[in-house]
Amino acid sequence: MIRFECDYTTGAHPNILEALVNSNTEACPGYGVDRHCEHARAMLRELCLAPKAGVHFLVGGTQANTTVIAAALRPHQGVLCAETGHINAHESGAIESTGHKVLGLSAAEGKIDARQIDEYCQSHYDDVAWEHMVQPGMVYLSLPTELGTVYTLAELEEISAVCRRWKLPLFVDGARLACGLAASDITLPDLARLCDVFYLGGTKAGLLFGEAVVITSPTLNKDFRYLIKQRGGMLAKGRLLGVQFEAFLKNSLFLDIGKKEVAKAMRLRSAFEKKGYPLFVNSPTNQQFPILPNEALAALERDYSFEVWARVDPDHTAVRFCTSWSTTDQDVDALIEDIRRL
Amino acid sequence: MIRFECDYTTGAHPNILEALVNSNTEACPGYGVDRHCEHARAMLRELCLAPKAGVHFLVGGTQANTTVIAAALRPHQGVLCAETGHINAHESGAIESTGHKVLGLSAAEGKIDARQIDEYCQSHYDDVAWEHMVQPGMVYLSLPTELGTVYTLAELEEISAVCRRWKLPLFVDGARLACGLAASDITLPDLARLCDVFYLGGTKAGLLFGEAVVITSPTLNKDFRYLIKQRGGMLAKGRLLGVQFEAFLKNSLFLDIGKKEVAKAMRLRSAFEKKGYPLFVNSPTNQQFPILPNEALAALERDYSFEVWARVDPDHTAVRFCTSWSTTDQDVDALIEDIRRL
Amino acid sequence: MIRFECDYTTGAHPNILEALVNSNTEACPGYGVDRHCEHARAMLRELCLAPKAGVHFLVGGTQANTTVIAAALRPHQGVLCAETGHINAHESGAIESTGHKVLGLSAAEGKIDARQIDEYCQSHYDDVAWEHMVQPGMVYLSLPTELGTVYTLAELEEISAVCRRWKLPLFVDGARLACGLAASDITLPDLARLCDVFYLGGTKAGLLFGEAVVITSPTLNKDFRYLIKQRGGMLAKGRLLGVQFEAFLKNSLFLDIGKKEVAKAMRLRSAFEKKGYPLFVNSPTNQQFPILPNEALAALERDYSFEVWARVDPDHTAVRFCTSWSTTDQDVDALIEDIRRL
Amino acid sequence: MIRFECDYTTGAHPNILEALVNSNTEACPGYGVDRHCEHARAMLRELCLAPKAGVHFLVGGTQANTTVIAAALRPHQGVLCAETGHINAHESGAIESTGHKVLGLSAAEGKIDARQIDEYCQSHYDDVAWEHMVQPGMVYLSLPTELGTVYTLAELEEISAVCRRWKLPLFVDGARLACGLAASDITLPDLARLCDVFYLGGTKAGLLFGEAVVITSPTLNKDFRYLIKQRGGMLAKGRLLGVQFEAFLKNSLFLDIGKKEVAKAMRLRSAFEKKGYPLFVNSPTNQQFPILPNEALAALERDYSFEVWARVDPDHTAVRFCTSWSTTDQDVDALIEDIRRL
Repeated sequence: MIRFECDYTTGAHPNILEALVNSNTEACPGYGVDRHCEHARAMLRELCLAPKAGVHFLVGGTQANTTVIAAALRPHQGVLCAETGHINAHESGAIESTGHKVLGLSAAEGKIDARQIDEYCQSHYDDVAWEHMVQPGMVYLSLPTELGTVYTLAELEEISAVCRRWKLPLFVDGARLACGLAASDITLPDLARLCDVFYLGGTKAGLLFGEAVVITSPTLNKDFRYLIKQRGGMLAKGRLLGVQFEAFLKNSLFLDIGKKEVAKAMRLRSAFEKKGYPLFVNSPTNQQFPILPNEALAALERDYSFEVWARVDPDHTAVRFCTSWSTTDQDVDALIEDIRRL
Repeated sequence: MIRFECDYTTGAHPNILEALVNSNTEACPGYGVDRHCEHARAMLRELCLAPKAGVHFLVGGTQANTTVIAAALRPHQGVLCAETGHINAHESGAIESTGHKVLGLSAAEGKIDARQIDEYCQSHYDDVAWEHMVQPGMVYLSLPTELGTVYTLAELEEISAVCRRWKLPLFVDGARLACGLAASDITLPDLARLCDVFYLGGTKAGLLFGEAVVITSPTLNKDFRYLIKQRGGMLAKGRLLGVQFEAFLKNSLFLDIGKKEVAKAMRLRSAFEKKGYPLFVNSPTNQQFPILPNEALAALERDYSFEVWARVDPDHTAVRFCTSWSTTDQDVDALIEDIRRL
Repeated sequence: MIRFECDYTTGAHPNILEALVNSNTEACPGYGVDRHCEHARAMLRELCLAPKAGVHFLVGGTQANTTVIAAALRPHQGVLCAETGHINAHESGAIESTGHKVLGLSAAEGKIDARQIDEYCQSHYDDVAWEHMVQPGMVYLSLPTELGTVYTLAELEEISAVCRRWKLPLFVDGARLACGLAASDITLPDLARLCDVFYLGGTKAGLLFGEAVVITSPTLNKDFRYLIKQRGGMLAKGRLLGVQFEAFLKNSLFLDIGKKEVAKAMRLRSAFEKKGYPLFVNSPTNQQFPILPNEALAALERDYSFEVWARVDPDHTAVRFCTSWSTTDQDVDALIEDIRRL
Repeated sequence: MIRFECDYTTGAHPNILEALVNSNTEACPGYGVDRHCEHARAMLRELCLAPKAGVHFLVGGTQANTTVIAAALRPHQGVLCAETGHINAHESGAIESTGHKVLGLSAAEGKIDARQIDEYCQSHYDDVAWEHMVQPGMVYLSLPTELGTVYTLAELEEISAVCRRWKLPLFVDGARLACGLAASDITLPDLARLCDVFYLGGTKAGLLFGEAVVITSPTLNKDFRYLIKQRGGMLAKGRLLGVQFEAFLKNSLFLDIGKKEVAKAMRLRSAFEKKGYPLFVNSPTNQQFPILPNEALAALERDYSFEVWARVDPDHTAVRFCTSWSTTDQDVDALIEDIRRL
């Protein structure tokens, strides 16, 4: 069984694991104020050209999303988000558990645009019963989206501008940002410049776990560590996050991993296309969504794990194949060969 | 200016006001354990043929909805509801403020049906990522709906059956139940038999304020008074609710008021139809939604207040006219005459 | 049975009731934007010498406390409060239900002082684990306190100064403020000047219900109506609050009622003291707490209702007698006579 | 600098680290349903003699506490806890953030007893205003407590009995349970028999991170994975928890680690006592709290890190020294020698 079901099937990239092993017996203070965390923070600020940004290392994505959103909103506010967004669909109501509504916007291929945000806000304040409705209080995007698609820099700039006009903090979920950076024209300094907060995900790019939250808004950054603690995200051995991110950021390993994940996914995509299987969504990143005839699906399930995404018609099913840091050329070759033979 | 904008523009029906005035100097214990509340509870239990039901008097509808729903759900559960439902659209995120997602279902004319509920539950548990999604935990209906439409007894029985199959408590918001009972084949005993909890609204049917929550589920009723207190709904002078509901229930005054509100609304509806104005929704209750040419809207706005509901096209707008306990025949006559003249 | 158990046993003061009856058939817009509410707001701003203050009418005290506190705090913050404070002891966890810890301070006769607040804040930030503890985020006082005691103007000025130094909003719960104003040297303009938010309670001073929240902090006032709606406090027939407060504020009726409640309570206090019964707490307002021999308690229970407050020793019990707007001279005379005879 | 400030200064015990390295490239499904997690679950059930218990692996203690408590309580309920308990003092209001009050009980040396619980419940229901107060809904203990003390089996049995009489789920926080088992007469089967839920902590006993929550109450266990996800505790690479706990449970390594931590702490304790320094609390576990003259404190601070606990008088300070899995005999020898020389 070769696993393409997600990008977190294996442990850590060798550089990450080595760093953990080498630092194992070093005694450090707890809770993320050790020298490794401080160093990793400085490295990330420098990569972002954001010398004053707050950088906080959290364990996972749902935790990061919940902590950031609950920190940013007042009680009567909600967060605008693609209907397909992770916080709306796959976090068991984590955002609502902190008291806030997720305001879903219809999303073509997982993306929303500046015009939708603008119209939502305008129509909110135009409504005679505006005070009886949840006030839009921030905007959440993912890069890449749940469907593997990416925003262009021009799109992100438009969204950022409309957010600033409506005074809405802009938050980019970067659980797969390594791939997003590899497959878009957006850079870390762009994110630092255009967002109020975003994160660079490690879990899906070769860390054991870990997400680096970058906060450029001083208001939002104030007292953020209290909130991390309150939401259960203050890792006692915080140094584990610092050590991993030092290795992840060193020589931009994250970008290297992102590029390799994407390159392998492009080889798979090409094999599906050659076979004549259409794509459910046009994803340029490490998640690929071919629409398979059901018998092809059944055949591939024997040797490969992947995720069933959506029934397209009685005979065809969209599925998801993910590449990860540990996907080998042999894994990809084997799958391509088996696709060819279908 | 004659006001048709809503059904809470005036104070109390004369019988209600008289009861308040007459009991004004009587000294009672606070918080709803006085003899008037006890009497009104007994009257309502009898009308519902539900001798063991819990009956709780709350001040308003949002308060009732929030208290009931937060009482019924575990933290990972959400409430199924028409997308247009009051809790989803017009309570400023009250339900989410208690930690729960509102799971909106598409709604034809404000109503949902048994099949939708069944399919939602089935697809939830069929999803490989079910534990990453909000669990459907109860069903919320309104009778009448936000759009004035009503369920039939047959529809309610089907919904109740599917709820029981999935073990979902069924909750009926009866903010306008007086009209709902007047315009449907559903009775109070039907509601007590088919729901776990529902309420008979007084605010929109001639009380100063007040909603009578009837809970037939012993599990849900347990400790409910703590929850009323916690949600800010425990009125110090609780006797005001008891006194009003005694008068409201006596000789089924509520039903009389409901019937009169509906009769007046039917006269308006007929006038709009005669004029050739289509109806935005086919409502048999005290809310009527004609689609007006914009110049007719402008003309009527001079002497009447009503609510703009939706832009239908650049030249036409759906509006809402409400009748209330205090709408007089003269009010209706005047409006009908002005419609005729448009 | 003559009721002294609380100050909300009867309905409304005649002036209030008359105003409700007279305005009963007037049609008004809902939700507190009618002319009565606007007028009452203007009257209260003028009484407070606070022309820019936000004024919001809510139904009850727990609702007011919860809405104000949840509006003011960020998620990691708690509210400092006397251990005996209403929000800590008698609101079924309403504050915690919005996500915030009540930080109880030891309280002599229900009061806290500026030094306690200062020391709490200093020791919070001095603690090495400060970010693992709830941050003090605002201060809650009651005037009068749960035990009927009042702050002096000098005490309130000191508390206000320390709050401003630590940037903590100061909130005064005025559920019984009519008595507090009658029995202290503090005025409405003092409260508007020294607090960020306070309320003038009507429920316990002759209204059917209603609390007038005055917010002098523009930050806190922003979007406050959304929060009222979300917490279930947006009364549909909001005019009922406006009409009552117009009558309550006219010619300072509230102060007149407060003075009379206090005067009657002082007569009772004097009778207990003459009889040689000590006072559990030295209250200058409408709540009196004599310590009765248990046989005296039993004797008085036959004709009077009052509240058992605390067992002092096996033979003595502290109880609470409350006077209200509707307590008559005859009621007081009868009780004094029966005390004398004990 | 030799670090005695806490028991999470270093990485993982060699057996744990080796297991992580060895399994690093194995591809597993995510979210804790892999073969390592399943195996570790079975091992722990067997050690507990609880074949039907739910076992869930979470990342940290605050997360475990919050998830368990929010799962167990209805909205009007709070959790009884020693005033010094971690959830009351050092989780930044995590429990309150889920809507629940922590009901603090006075605690001698960190412990509460059966009588206190019984009296609290009795007095709650005896209070005339019981429904206006937070209902006691569960009991939280720590073993060992924040002050290093342990319950005896007899004490735990009494507490369990009183909890069952009042129908309160009993929850034992076992963040340092390895030491608690080493230093008390309580066993894992006892905990499984007497509690509804408890956890065996790994973070403070040689894991990188991880707490194993054992739930013997079927009601509480139902749907628990939704709640883990919602609270941000569903680790994507869940196998990391399974792999670590397999090694931790194998041949009862956890107990071996606990015993060694305790043995080293006893050597320290003895050195302090020989020097004539009294102990702030009589702890039989890996946390020791000597009261040092301030000049001794200053002298030790030069070469050792430890935590300042409480000022005892102007000249003396209670401090905390912790031993951990990685504390060496040389570390202890060096400190003992320096204590002797003071």
